[in-house]
Amino acid sequence: MLRGTLHQGDTDAPAATENVLAALAGSAFFWLDLDDVEPDDMVKELLQTHFGFHPLAVRTAEQFSQRPRLDEYDSFAYLVARGADPDNSGTAEVHCFWTDRYVVTVHKGDCEALAQVRERLRRHPARQVAPPQIVVVYLVMGALVDSFFPYLSDFDDRIDALEDDILKRPTDAQLGEIFDMKRTLIDVRKLVAPQRDVMATINAGVADVPGMTTEASHYFRDLYDHLIRLSDLVDSYRDLLTNVMDTHLSTVSNRLNVVMKQLTIIATIFLPLSFLTGFFGQNFAYMVRVWLSPTWSFFVLGIGLELVTVVALVILFHKRGWLGGPTV
Amino acid sequence: MLRGTLHQGDTDAPAATENVLAALAGSAFFWLDLDDVEPDDMVKELLQTHFGFHPLAVRTAEQFSQRPRLDEYDSFAYLVARGADPDNSGTAEVHCFWTDRYVVTVHKGDCEALAQVRERLRRHPARQVAPPQIVVVYLVMGALVDSFFPYLSDFDDRIDALEDDILKRPTDAQLGEIFDMKRTLIDVRKLVAPQRDVMATINAGVADVPGMTTEASHYFRDLYDHLIRLSDLVDSYRDLLTNVMDTHLSTVSNRLNVVMKQLTIIATIFLPLSFLTGFFGQNFAYMVRVWLSPTWSFFVLGIGLELVTVVALVILFHKRGWLGGPTV
Amino acid sequence: MLRGTLHQGDTDAPAATENVLAALAGSAFFWLDLDDVEPDDMVKELLQTHFGFHPLAVRTAEQFSQRPRLDEYDSFAYLVARGADPDNSGTAEVHCFWTDRYVVTVHKGDCEALAQVRERLRRHPARQVAPPQIVVVYLVMGALVDSFFPYLSDFDDRIDALEDDILKRPTDAQLGEIFDMKRTLIDVRKLVAPQRDVMATINAGVADVPGMTTEASHYFRDLYDHLIRLSDLVDSYRDLLTNVMDTHLSTVSNRLNVVMKQLTIIATIFLPLSFLTGFFGQNFAYMVRVWLSPTWSFFVLGIGLELVTVVALVILFHKRGWLGGPTV
Amino acid sequence: MLRGTLHQGDTDAPAATENVLAALAGSAFFWLDLDDVEPDDMVKELLQTHFGFHPLAVRTAEQFSQRPRLDEYDSFAYLVARGADPDNSGTAEVHCFWTDRYVVTVHKGDCEALAQVRERLRRHPARQVAPPQIVVVYLVMGALVDSFFPYLSDFDDRIDALEDDILKRPTDAQLGEIFDMKRTLIDVRKLVAPQRDVMATINAGVADVPGMTTEASHYFRDLYDHLIRLSDLVDSYRDLLTNVMDTHLSTVSNRLNVVMKQLTIIATIFLPLSFLTGFFGQNFAYMVRVWLSPTWSFFVLGIGLELVTVVALVILFHKRGWLGGPTV
Amino acid sequence: MLRGTLHQGDTDAPAATENVLAALAGSAFFWLDLDDVEPDDMVKELLQTHFGFHPLAVRTAEQFSQRPRLDEYDSFAYLVARGADPDNSGTAEVHCFWTDRYVVTVHKGDCEALAQVRERLRRHPARQVAPPQIVVVYLVMGALVDSFFPYLSDFDDRIDALEDDILKRPTDAQLGEIFDMKRTLIDVRKLVAPQRDVMATINAGVADVPGMTTEASHYFRDLYDHLIRLSDLVDSYRDLLTNVMDTHLSTVSNRLNVVMKQLTIIATIFLPLSFLTGFFGQNFAYMVRVWLSPTWSFFVLGIGLELVTVVALVILFHKRGWLGGPTV
Repeated sequence: MLRGTLHQGDTDAPAATENVLAALAGSAFFWLDLDDVEPDDMVKELLQTHFGFHPLAVRTAEQFSQRPRLDEYDSFAYLVARGADPDNSGTAEVHCFWTDRYVVTVHKGDCEALAQVRERLRRHPARQVAPPQIVVVYLVMGALVDSFFPYLSDFDDRIDALEDDILKRPTDAQLGEIFDMKRTLIDVRKLVAPQRDVMATINAGVADVPGMTTEASHYFRDLYDHLIRLSDLVDSYRDLLTNVMDTHLSTVSNRLNVVMKQLTIIATIFLPLSFLTGFFGQNFAYMVRVWLSPTWSFFVLGIGLELVTVVALVILFHKRGWLGGPTV
Repeated sequence: MLRGTLHQGDTDAPAATENVLAALAGSAFFWLDLDDVEPDDMVKELLQTHFGFHPLAVRTAEQFSQRPRLDEYDSFAYLVARGADPDNSGTAEVHCFWTDRYVVTVHKGDCEALAQVRERLRRHPARQVAPPQIVVVYLVMGALVDSFFPYLSDFDDRIDALEDDILKRPTDAQLGEIFDMKRTLIDVRKLVAPQRDVMATINAGVADVPGMTTEASHYFRDLYDHLIRLSDLVDSYRDLLTNVMDTHLSTVSNRLNVVMKQLTIIATIFLPLSFLTGFFGQNFAYMVRVWLSPTWSFFVLGIGLELVTVVALVILFHKRGWLGGPTV
Repeated sequence: MLRGTLHQGDTDAPAATENVLAALAGSAFFWLDLDDVEPDDMVKELLQTHFGFHPLAVRTAEQFSQRPRLDEYDSFAYLVARGADPDNSGTAEVHCFWTDRYVVTVHKGDCEALAQVRERLRRHPARQVAPPQIVVVYLVMGALVDSFFPYLSDFDDRIDALEDDILKRPTDAQLGEIFDMKRTLIDVRKLVAPQRDVMATINAGVADVPGMTTEASHYFRDLYDHLIRLSDLVDSYRDLLTNVMDTHLSTVSNRLNVVMKQLTIIATIFLPLSFLTGFFGQNFAYMVRVWLSPTWSFFVLGIGLELVTVVALVILFHKRGWLGGPTV
Repeated sequence: MLRGTLHQGDTDAPAATENVLAALAGSAFFWLDLDDVEPDDMVKELLQTHFGFHPLAVRTAEQFSQRPRLDEYDSFAYLVARGADPDNSGTAEVHCFWTDRYVVTVHKGDCEALAQVRERLRRHPARQVAPPQIVVVYLVMGALVDSFFPYLSDFDDRIDALEDDILKRPTDAQLGEIFDMKRTLIDVRKLVAPQRDVMATINAGVADVPGMTTEASHYFRDLYDHLIRLSDLVDSYRDLLTNVMDTHLSTVSNRLNVVMKQLTIIATIFLPLSFLTGFFGQNFAYMVRVWLSPTWSFFVLGIGLELVTVVALVILFHKRGWLGGPTV
Repeated sequence: MLRGTLHQGDTDAPAATENVLAALAGSAFFWLDLDDVEPDDMVKELLQTHFGFHPLAVRTAEQFSQRPRLDEYDSFAYLVARGADPDNSGTAEVHCFWTDRYVVTVHKGDCEALAQVRERLRRHPARQVAPPQIVVVYLVMGALVDSFFPYLSDFDDRIDALEDDILKRPTDAQLGEIFDMKRTLIDVRKLVAPQRDVMATINAGVADVPGMTTEASHYFRDLYDHLIRLSDLVDSYRDLLTNVMDTHLSTVSNRLNVVMKQLTIIATIFLPLSFLTGFFGQNFAYMVRVWLSPTWSFFVLGIGLELVTVVALVILFHKRGWLGGPTV
């Protein structure tokens, strides 16, 4: 069964085959949005036989998880647009056939962005100035592109929080989080960069798309501007994350230094002291008899010598600035 | 002896010299696939004398392990295409001479991709719309290009598993695995990037290949799209591997910190305690006689002093947050 | 209420609606500077209804924090220019509509740069040679661009000071400072690079802006030169900061080495000595009776053996060059 | 005295001045190869006065260690080609003047590559199809370019061996070797990249060289293909070396971790044990009299307590997985 | 007062105002070199009023420390050229106005490069073939460009020496030196890269400069070649310095490993030995009476047990390859 929505003259109707064929037979502009969620060949049949789209394009339109791209055919343009959809499967994907007289979009399952478009389409000022297929494509693609912004919006704060956390106390968990964020940015970049290039191609007039007018080009330039801002964002976040990673390593090394200084201070104080106590714990008859038996020798050798050692070492550490530093 | 297959009018025949010459003398399209596994000059002789290909192209066609490329000659195009072939020698390589009337491919040993092509050729929809030499080249190159996808498909999971492993317990073996994966990606990149550039050249119309039509260009664009997805994949895996490498170093440093903290805690507790026991193990007559002989002194100096020291150090460590942390 | 300044014929007047409409009705050049700080629709109304600017441009002009860019429309050019404004919100932003006959700029709140422009406009030599709209745009954009220089001017010294500090004593605080400086540079780069590209587009003649003459192009080239110097500055500071970060890590590692050498020296000297004193502290009857009772044995075994050990170790350390090195 | 070889009509003669002038006066193609090893002005005189080459080109031709490049003059092209020559001075360098009627090459000292060219020139198939000056330039440049391949051929194995070595036992010597290999690659890259660009310029038809025909362009494309393979090789080796360097650092850190764990295990076992022996070595009268005199106390306190401590610590280490790991 | 030199017809005269005006009134080529060291407006007055240069160019010519660039005006070209001048202020800077009939250069203070140019101008072979203004510009810019070579010439040796030093003994001072060299390279790059781009623009014919002929282009190509060699040099030195920095870190880590191994060896040998001596130093009555009183027990327990321990540990270390390695 065909699932989807047929939008014509400001009204939405379910996309039953007979409606679609009637619209196709007429001469008014329409937008057909198909949901290709069921594994039957209805969509393929409709697109290939009745709409007469090229088999290569139709076959591609049925495969999801594609790289965004624009293919020009004789009578239509085929566009793959991607967006973020954190509530559902993570990413949204719309395949768009676009001719001089109608626009056909194919998606899979729920697609929040397309619902928004139908809402906005009725009252968007672009309707007065630009051809209707451009308005539909602009709104669909705009909704998908803008869906990345909320997705990335908390990165700024997360990176700052991560940097602060690391300077306070670096942990392995932070490394995992940096890795996850980098992976997300790489994934977003793979979706954003080709869409930006598609828009650049259209704006430069290299690709020739149906309904293109000077007026229409203002809208594609607007999309391009959003995409280039997204790609700037992704690049700067990646740059900052690399820096955060370096900060992690340097902070850990710094802390190791502090720990090792403390160990060295402890060892440098107690190893000599223990040597002294060990020395006077020996059983040499002469030492026991001559050196250790007078009362004064306990206070001079047993306590005084150790105090002198401690004081000398503390002065030495103080001179080197090892005392009073950070304590991890 | 000539080894190979002559494909003409949907039937495959062994590529005996007389068959080939008959096909060459006729006017119907044919595809000759030669297996240049034996070190005789049959292939060279055939290509140069009977087909009349340029000596430079023929000489190149006999050397394998080449960089993918497209050379245009007056009457034919010479294409080197590469794929993955993990079951056999690791990579597949097909040299393709391609004219207005026939296609000659040269490979060495078994080539899984070409067998698939012969199978698919009979029932591929492209036959209806595109010139036959384009269909053959498209299917051959498509089979080679797509052979990289299964080869790379487990990288995603391997990289995630590696990252998790490293965060659990970093080892030297992981470094070796990262190195091997990076080397594989560099090798794949060296094969994919030039094929992508060849396709870009054809699509931009810079290279002029036999049988090129608007219709045909859709097929080359499809190949280009696959290649650019491959090259995106390779780039993002390399990026992630660099991150995994950094994670390894940072995790190791982090763990070193934990180990050193433990050593420092142990040393900071036991070195002072050992000093105290050493102190009261000295043989100073005065100390033994006056300090150590009363019973209370054992409980106060011998045990109490040590308990106080331990409690004081534990409180100190607790304040610094050294206790209760991770234990490597 | 409309807030802003109407500059016409060297005099400034408050931008009351009636003044603006009068200027618009006349034929003399004017520059209208609007302050869009209040959330009413006066500015939008004025720009869209009376000036007749494209709705897309007007809608964009009301959103601040935009990426610098130049959009060409049929009858006007729309330019987003950004500058630094450390005293106020951090960055300055001016949206500029620019036609053959007038220039309209929109900003939000106080904007130091625009005040300067009004001052300089009266006596700038460019007035004699270039069209008035070019002079206004040149001065506005010039003031914004040059506002980055004082902002970056202390980076040079700060980086040098940081490097010296780190070589003296590396701390975590320096890592935080490096991160902050990198973030600032990334932010400045995001504002400077697109403005540089806008100027390059204008200079290359790709963008066609109102009032462009050969004479005018000298002024845009001047702006381009300032922007490319800024972007060179940012790049070299980023490069140096990366180096400073590496220096930090290496210095810390170096210092760790020094600390560990000292710990090793201490342990290597005192562990053997403590073993010797422990050895002669044992209660073996034979040792106490035969070895430890003669007077000479104390001086030979108790003192001599330890001195020999110390001397031997000091000689060993000296040979390895461990003594006399840096002391952190 | 003039040193060199005059090649004309398949025969080689010493390049005496009179021979050269005779060849120059005739109309047949010749190739003059000059050895500019002696510091007289014969070569300069000949090139400038008799051949009439531009003074700038002649002056340049006498300075060796140049960056590869192609300069077009009115009547000739001037090409600097570089190769590897590990047996002699390390690099080979040929300066090539190339007109419609003859080719003059200038080198210094022995040049293995040029000797090969004279050998191959007599029987190369290109002679039948391409203009003679193209054949000479192709063979000379081809011999120089291909001389890099054996030079780089052992890099692959050396890098793998280095990686294995480092994973087995990282040393400082390996760092020195990585540095030397990187330096070599940088040097090769400085020679290969400009030659590749020169070939790209010729192939794109940007540079107009004497004797250029469609046929000739096949040969330059062949050179280009070799150069781009070289530059791919250099890039991938540099990439791998960077990875080897990172592996070195990570392996060293990993090993440090292992060493430190062992130190910590040793210290964690023996510091408490030594504390216990120290405790019962104290001279408190009460302890000696009451605790240490019963026979059972030796087995319980002296031996049992220590065994319990050791067993408890071994269990602890076992739980943390510290035992049975790698041992550096 | 006007300071400078007027060069006309092979003679140099002081640049008095009347001489300059006479030359300007005549029709012969002249080169006026002005020294703008004094803060009066003589130079500005002369250039703007009498020579009639554009105010923007004149204003720029009075500001030093500029980025190299070429601005084309209607009747002249304005070029900023930079060089190294280690003996004076560090960098040399010449601003050059250049028309069809004369060249005016402006510099500040002593400029060694310009003195050389006046010397070489009289006898340079370019005079016969190229327009005089090209010869002056070529010689001025050539002298400035070539001044970078001696400046960079010792970098090669310094980098090698640094690498060797670091492998021998890494110190903090080397980090400072690496930082200084990187900063120098960044500074040189900022001067060289734009000059290289200016030359590329002229050679590609994008910039149209006075007196440009095919002949003249050979000279600009020569400058371009020098600049691209400089920029290759800077890039390869930066690359090597990055490697030296990495070597430093890895060497330090390696050494730390060696130090820690030694500490671990010392601790692993002496902690068990000290435990044994501590054990037999305890005051358990039973142990003293039964175990320690026989003579054999001293040799077996007191000495034998310790020897066995040492021998066992040495064998263990030997097996792990810890002995005989490097000693920092």
